Amino acid sequence: MTRSADARTPLSPTPRSTVTRSKERARSDRAELDAVLDAGLICHLGVLLGGAPVVLPTIYGREGDVLYLHGSTGAGNLRAAMTGPVSVAVTLVDGIVYARSAMHFSMNYRSAVVHGRAVELTDPAQRVRALEVITEHAAPGAWSRVRPPSKKELAATVVLALDLTEASVKVRSGGPNDDAADIETGGVWAGVLPVRQVWDAPIGSADLDPDVAIPSDVLDRADRTLTPVR
Amino acid sequence: MTRSADARTPLSPTPRSTVTRSKERARSDRAELDAVLDAGLICHLGVLLGGAPVVLPTIYGREGDVLYLHGSTGAGNLRAAMTGPVSVAVTLVDGIVYARSAMHFSMNYRSAVVHGRAVELTDPAQRVRALEVITEHAAPGAWSRVRPPSKKELAATVVLALDLTEASVKVRSGGPNDDAADIETGGVWAGVLPVRQVWDAPIGSADLDPDVAIPSDVLDRADRTLTPVR
Repeated sequence: MTRSADARTPLSPTPRSTVTRSKERARSDRAELDAVLDAGLICHLGVLLGGAPVVLPTIYGREGDVLYLHGSTGAGNLRAAMTGPVSVAVTLVDGIVYARSAMHFSMNYRSAVVHGRAVELTDPAQRVRALEVITEHAAPGAWSRVRPPSKKELAATVVLALDLTEASVKVRSGGPNDDAADIETGGVWAGVLPVRQVWDAPIGSADLDPDVAIPSDVLDRADRTLTPVR
Repeated sequence: MTRSADARTPLSPTPRSTVTRSKERARSDRAELDAVLDAGLICHLGVLLGGAPVVLPTIYGREGDVLYLHGSTGAGNLRAAMTGPVSVAVTLVDGIVYARSAMHFSMNYRSAVVHGRAVELTDPAQRVRALEVITEHAAPGAWSRVRPPSKKELAATVVLALDLTEASVKVRSGGPNDDAADIETGGVWAGVLPVRQVWDAPIGSADLDPDVAIPSDVLDRADRTLTPVR
């Protein structure tokens, strides 16, 4: 796995990585990879369709060494993901890096890229477990309090497993890497403007029975300083 | 272009779109496409490398009907983007849709996907203009107050232009699409937990002359209720 703690180019291309590091380093990178995958909300899945790459956003979940994806049995892109190579990227933007020169502007980010072949899950218990992992990734704590998938819903759903063996993680943090001459010249502000994702207050569905309380998994995730809507 | 105002599946695969709509509809979609591209901070670029798709995060900018990308002349993925088909996706997550059943959990999002062939810009003025557009996309208002690219920097940079002709935009908003039976059964909370990106206070670079004030383009973007760091 590759990791650049201070990549010089803004979100520069991540080459397909080869795990050539020592076990210790691989473990450390592995924890970082898991952290990025667990922190993301969506991934971007790349598949091959008619000889061209197609990138699409989709939800996912991770358990151990496996990334789970799912979708409708009718989706052409998902079929492409089952029959050809895939690439999955999860990226978190942490800030804009303001430099003293235009070409040193950059972003702070954490990014994980996984390459490989996705395998369709066929074992019923594995499929339901994968759907639980995906649902819990999007909405931690929700699975156990909602109706589980029906037979009909399961029959209409494809669940894919992608091994995390071939994966890379890249992190950029800190301030700009300005040229010495520009620092010496001075007069231009340089630094980072951090950006982050925040949850607002929950908005109850229009068809919701007003007697139904907001569950703790939603309340604990939401901004509790705001008043829930409805 | 395709647009699903209320996609039923969570961030479901976007098929390669065909512009078959009426002019009027295409115009309306076009404004929506521009809005998504302008609101995003990064895109995910998909290229073909050794017969497999590779997805990587990168910064970009849009001007009129063109999306600009840039990178180091040494980057293999960028070379792949110049010689083969590409797919670019920009996705903004707006909320988690909590449903009464697991399979109806979803996300609210705005997503743009562009397909095509990226062309390398060679005209010096066009190249600098594209770099301005990319820099201004990441850091609006910064370009004119920082050192412009040097000849050496320009020589080390590839700038690509991707036409927005083959593009699709997909938006999901609103509450869950629960089954009638689950709504009737009741007892389960359903709604949306909105999520959004916020800017924090700027953090000055460690090597910054303390006399240099934070410029207005940074201050106006930052959270002004917070105190700048250093």
